[in-house]
Amino acid sequence: MTLHGYWRSSSTYRVRIALNLKGISYRTVPVNLLAREQTGPFFAALNPALGVPVLELDDGTVLTQSVAILEWLEETHPAPALLPAAPLMRARVRAAALVIASEIHPANNLRILDRLKATGHGPEDTASWMAHWIHQGLAALEVMMADETPFGFGAMPGLADLCLIPQLYNARRSSLDLSPFPRLTAIEAACLALPAFQAAAPEAQPDAPKGQGG
Amino acid sequence: MTLHGYWRSSSTYRVRIALNLKGISYRTVPVNLLAREQTGPFFAALNPALGVPVLELDDGTVLTQSVAILEWLEETHPAPALLPAAPLMRARVRAAALVIASEIHPANNLRILDRLKATGHGPEDTASWMAHWIHQGLAALEVMMADETPFGFGAMPGLADLCLIPQLYNARRSSLDLSPFPRLTAIEAACLALPAFQAAAPEAQPDAPKGQGG
Repeated sequence: MTLHGYWRSSSTYRVRIALNLKGISYRTVPVNLLAREQTGPFFAALNPALGVPVLELDDGTVLTQSVAILEWLEETHPAPALLPAAPLMRARVRAAALVIASEIHPANNLRILDRLKATGHGPEDTASWMAHWIHQGLAALEVMMADETPFGFGAMPGLADLCLIPQLYNARRSSLDLSPFPRLTAIEAACLALPAFQAAAPEAQPDAPKGQGG
Repeated sequence: MTLHGYWRSSSTYRVRIALNLKGISYRTVPVNLLAREQTGPFFAALNPALGVPVLELDDGTVLTQSVAILEWLEETHPAPALLPAAPLMRARVRAAALVIASEIHPANNLRILDRLKATGHGPEDTASWMAHWIHQGLAALEVMMADETPFGFGAMPGLADLCLIPQLYNARRSSLDLSPFPRLTAIEAACLALPAFQAAAPEAQPDAPKGQGG
């Protein structure tokens, strides 16, 4: 498999974690979002929605949208599971993942921030915009992921955790105060202790600028 | 089952279509988004993310996030199926649904428009903001849903169609020119010929203002 993505893209980061957790080896093809490579003709032919990540299979089949990719990975490589077995528990895990994938992240991604800049907003405005949505979404997740430990929904990391970690990474980049979210930062600590999460970290990617890595 | 929602909420509209397609009877509890009932203490206890829809089961169990609700309905009430059987096809259908649920809609929902107003944008700016994101997303879907007929992915309506129809309803409310999207409007016509879609229409809901109905 080939993952077309960007080191700091949080939706790409989600898929990297899932591939690592499931022990699937893959090749990385960097797409430089800051250079707008995702809007060029090569990439548009891969994904008409002009976003990363794109997972390309060895036969050339292309999968888009990180959550659809994660569900496909779960269906085709079921162990270890990213979702619990019981439908109601699956719905709870998916709901937490979607607070990130359908609420926090889409309000804060690069294309939204670009549009805010294009409509006259400066760095202070965009920082305040990001902080607002991240804070509101994390406050919901602090409640939704409160019941089990050490991961968001129990003993194994899953779909909600692998969406949460990249979102917290973004929050830290924005210097957001995470002290109101002790539960989420405890989940983060549990996840970041695992090699699958460490190897997926933005700074560990081949397209990360040198000097960012550790 | 009880569906807490709002007549014009497109994510509520998605779930209504799914319930109708699967022949599941349900009770409607209106949540007036314009009166900000979704941010009050009663609703916050149901859904910490302060959004509709919420599906409440007869034992009081609460499900949130429309896409998680749709996946739960599919798992617990599999016929008629909203997703095809083959994982790759499921991934294609989910990707199209998520272009709407994780890209177009979150950039345009009420909370985003409220925030734009609060940061000094007038009606022309918000209309232009909405048109930009809807147009960009529909252009991707026109390609992603091009291959099969009469519905987005073949002979039966599914997850992508039931996300598309509410999004096109929103586009029409915004007087967006849909002529660049002949494939999507053909899917819309096929869907709106079905009673399950007709009964889910915003104007057919109990909380729609009188005189809006048909």
